[in-house]
Amino acid sequence: MTPPPATQQAAAPEVLARCRDLVRPALAQAVGRLHPWHAEMAAFSLGWDAADGSPAPGSQGKGIRQALTLLSAEAAGAPAQDAVVGAVAVELIHVFSLLHDDIMDGDETRRQRATVWKAYGTGPAILAGDALFALAVQTLADSPGRYSATAVRHLAGTLTDLVRGQADDLLFESRPWNGPEAVQPHEYRWMAEHKTGALLGCAAGLGAVLSGAQAPTVDALARAGRHLGVAFQAVDDLLGIWGDPEATGKPVHSDLRRLKKTYPVLSALATDGPAARRLATLLGTGNPLDDADARRAAELVEEAGGRSATLAEAHRQLDSARRSLESVPLAPAALGEILALLPFLIDRTR
Amino acid sequence: MTPPPATQQAAAPEVLARCRDLVRPALAQAVGRLHPWHAEMAAFSLGWDAADGSPAPGSQGKGIRQALTLLSAEAAGAPAQDAVVGAVAVELIHVFSLLHDDIMDGDETRRQRATVWKAYGTGPAILAGDALFALAVQTLADSPGRYSATAVRHLAGTLTDLVRGQADDLLFESRPWNGPEAVQPHEYRWMAEHKTGALLGCAAGLGAVLSGAQAPTVDALARAGRHLGVAFQAVDDLLGIWGDPEATGKPVHSDLRRLKKTYPVLSALATDGPAARRLATLLGTGNPLDDADARRAAELVEEAGGRSATLAEAHRQLDSARRSLESVPLAPAALGEILALLPFLIDRTR
Repeated sequence: MTPPPATQQAAAPEVLARCRDLVRPALAQAVGRLHPWHAEMAAFSLGWDAADGSPAPGSQGKGIRQALTLLSAEAAGAPAQDAVVGAVAVELIHVFSLLHDDIMDGDETRRQRATVWKAYGTGPAILAGDALFALAVQTLADSPGRYSATAVRHLAGTLTDLVRGQADDLLFESRPWNGPEAVQPHEYRWMAEHKTGALLGCAAGLGAVLSGAQAPTVDALARAGRHLGVAFQAVDDLLGIWGDPEATGKPVHSDLRRLKKTYPVLSALATDGPAARRLATLLGTGNPLDDADARRAAELVEEAGGRSATLAEAHRQLDSARRSLESVPLAPAALGEILALLPFLIDRTR
Repeated sequence: MTPPPATQQAAAPEVLARCRDLVRPALAQAVGRLHPWHAEMAAFSLGWDAADGSPAPGSQGKGIRQALTLLSAEAAGAPAQDAVVGAVAVELIHVFSLLHDDIMDGDETRRQRATVWKAYGTGPAILAGDALFALAVQTLADSPGRYSATAVRHLAGTLTDLVRGQADDLLFESRPWNGPEAVQPHEYRWMAEHKTGALLGCAAGLGAVLSGAQAPTVDALARAGRHLGVAFQAVDDLLGIWGDPEATGKPVHSDLRRLKKTYPVLSALATDGPAARRLATLLGTGNPLDDADARRAAELVEEAGGRSATLAEAHRQLDSARRSLESVPLAPAALGEILALLPFLIDRTR
């Protein structure tokens, strides 16, 4: 198959829309197998009007994970359809992790609506998360293809990585802002690779697994997904400080107000210069910051180089993702679409 | 192999101890793969001194689920060792469900010690539960035997049943005590079969799966486990009202004080006689009961026949379990040990 010339290649938004359209019927069918109460919470979290998958306008995610799964299958030479079951499992795990993480982090809103625990209560949200987790495993385990057992192993490894990353993120909260016990940028990177990278890596890897690809291809795609995940987290961290409140749905400087240990802050502190020391003093009181202090903290992070270091980290991770993709032979059209997604997903700062 | 004469058959406590000893090293090894923070919470919940599995005296469970897995494997003609990985997965899921259920139910103590969320916080307990869930799936999925994929499918089906049962139990809380919307005893039985029976059924079924048994044997053992689970729940419900506080670690009449909808209460109310109507009035205020009201409610449940109906239900379920076990050919010695466990597990009222 000859790849289409670059000019005919679908742009990222169209690629994402095509993948969402391919996955939605199967995802709605899976959600329909849940207890009706859990199906309602899942639909709410997915930004659907009802559990049948009909979209509530404007409130859905981009569907980056499901797209990665389908494009990876195509890149490994199989039809996207072969990997739909993997995309469904990955989306279910994504929603599970949002439900539980929002409780742990005390987040009350997501994409301009209440989080599930806020709308339905903590106990029901915990259980709905568990139900989605169980359904994801069951969906893959019951799928008829030859690669179902390998796919389950792939998912199970991801899940244990995911909770490890989240554990470290929670533990970072009680670590000091400076001194020998302070969280170092490399520890944050490890955490992000597990907390955020694991599921994007799983998404990409599963597509390859379900198309029967050999281990080097699976590994290359999974590794690319992990790098993309760390880049994604770095950009999230930038948005958490400098993002437009209209776009993020969160107040300006929200991560600083909440004293969240993110990459820009940690890399600023690690420079240990005058701005870093002033920043450590400002954050070290342990009290949430008011408007003026949060603005001052953002200036100090920038002055100490935390903003540029984070942007550089995001680009480094994207480069690593590209190199990983180029290390194995992949179908050029699908590869082109994956490569077109990368900058699109990172360029969320506007 | 000739079965030993009935008089030589090991008594239930010895059977349980033998199974615990077989499983503990593998369970400790699995727990050791967790993030150290999660390993600590798991050890705490398992009643261990530390994550290496060394027992903290007097605070461990009986290990009924792991015993069922090993005995089912032996009953299906395989060495118990073949099913240890299944017993580990089932114990991990059991601890996961305790961690999350204790949050949902607001329970602050279990086996005379603090529950994990009370000791470590809600967020950490949610995450530790997720970690145990993930580890259970990974343990089975990564096990080298020929039956690993079937075992994962078996576990995944269990997990979706488990959360369904727990969902109904949570939803029962907001249902009225009488009238057409009241919870009926058959609904409660369905709930118990899922919430409690699913994991005992999984335990028994997994033993058979991992010994390569045919579907009728797997089904018969799984069905027996489910019946045992419902019997177990019925006895738990009796203990929740009339149990000795010294033995249960809970105040007398604790389930009534908390207005918990359990089998004795629901079957008493379903009789719709004078005692049932007085009981409905007493419970219907929606306020937790004080000492005198709780004692009065217990008397009314008994007067309306709720206590004897629950005991009869437990025995009916045990009989069904026995019939299920006798419906397929099983190795007599192991069958004898399973049969010896049944009354032992139910007779916890002394």
